[in-house]
Amino acid sequence: MDRLDTIVKNLREFVAEREWNQFHDPKNLAMALASEAGELLSEYRWISNTEADQLTKSGEKRARIVAEAADVGIALLLFCDRIGIDLLDAIQSKMITNSQNYPANESRGKPERPKK
Amino acid sequence: MDRLDTIVKNLREFVAEREWNQFHDPKNLAMALASEAGELLSEYRWISNTEADQLTKSGEKRARIVAEAADVGIALLLFCDRIGIDLLDAIQSKMITNSQNYPANESRGKPERPKK
Amino acid sequence: MDRLDTIVKNLREFVAEREWNQFHDPKNLAMALASEAGELLSEYRWISNTEADQLTKSGEKRARIVAEAADVGIALLLFCDRIGIDLLDAIQSKMITNSQNYPANESRGKPERPKK
Amino acid sequence: MDRLDTIVKNLREFVAEREWNQFHDPKNLAMALASEAGELLSEYRWISNTEADQLTKSGEKRARIVAEAADVGIALLLFCDRIGIDLLDAIQSKMITNSQNYPANESRGKPERPKK
Repeated sequence: MDRLDTIVKNLREFVAEREWNQFHDPKNLAMALASEAGELLSEYRWISNTEADQLTKSGEKRARIVAEAADVGIALLLFCDRIGIDLLDAIQSKMITNSQNYPANESRGKPERPKK
Repeated sequence: MDRLDTIVKNLREFVAEREWNQFHDPKNLAMALASEAGELLSEYRWISNTEADQLTKSGEKRARIVAEAADVGIALLLFCDRIGIDLLDAIQSKMITNSQNYPANESRGKPERPKK
Repeated sequence: MDRLDTIVKNLREFVAEREWNQFHDPKNLAMALASEAGELLSEYRWISNTEADQLTKSGEKRARIVAEAADVGIALLLFCDRIGIDLLDAIQSKMITNSQNYPANESRGKPERPKK
Repeated sequence: MDRLDTIVKNLREFVAEREWNQFHDPKNLAMALASEAGELLSEYRWISNTEADQLTKSGEKRARIVAEAADVGIALLLFCDRIGIDLLDAIQSKMITNSQNYPANESRGKPERPKK
């Protein structure tokens, strides 16, 4: 069993022990995911891009950011488990699509999808 | 090398080939993450909780939802890699905190954090 | 001067007194807006659609929800002011587009945009 | 009847004609609001703060951003109407709270809430 599978198993037990499956339909989990992403976002609201790496380097702020990234990850794993997909498989498939949508030579230095 | 490490390595290569590191400071990646979470959210906007599992079961809608969950995952992995953390380690630590914040007997059937 | 104009004027003074214009570029304000929307979202995470009206009716929860809706509104007004548009004018224009995109007889009881 | 009241009245008619009230409980509207905020956010994902004003100045991008700000506004007005509040009243009350939470002399040049 790889690390991800172990974590998903532990999350399932955590939820089952608390009888939270009743709240964890995909709609509610998508909401939880978006609100956790919003909390992470709020940490970077007022700083500039050039300060963002520095801000995240250490201290209480870093600890909070790491915890918020983990919350996003937990919500995402719960969502994937509920709809019956493996997150890493889904990412691998999506990366193939992304390679096609953003060909390296048309996308170099340009983050927007090239127009056809 | 486990599955997650392989994916993170592939993501790094994808980004390096396109010279996108310049755009991928933590602030921008947190924004990308939140906007991908918003797209996932929009799939569940108008349906009720009781329909959410059914909606996600098959068809074009399911394919879109899986791709959006993957996009959220990719943005999250890029964010974690940029700030130098391993997502699964961060999740494991956060699950310990969550076990303390939501003791099973005080949280059974109640999704809100118990008041002290 | 109508009510909205007065509020926008007061917001400008509030920001100027605190010398916050330096933080209020459109990117940062869009982030602030999304993170406030995420906070509002989190109030409704675990309840079902059928409970949502009841939950919002009274008490501490209602007070918090009203304050969060106001925060979203403030961020939106700051954003609109920064990019030089009047929110209500923009809404009126968009409502014309929406009337075209969602013709009443094709959209009755169906919240998704009709396919052409 | 001021401009906002007219718009709210028009929104009500728009929704009633399409029989969309069944979808517009506060939970769903909070989701719609957050996903519209996510779309606005995505316009500013990859640019730096210093480019954000320029980006918003003209062209197709500006038109899209204005339409997305309007969408956020519409979702917010629908939400406020559903829970029975006037957005501008709520904003005015919140601005009083904000003046207390961010005293001008403690908050000058600092966008975070002063610690007590």
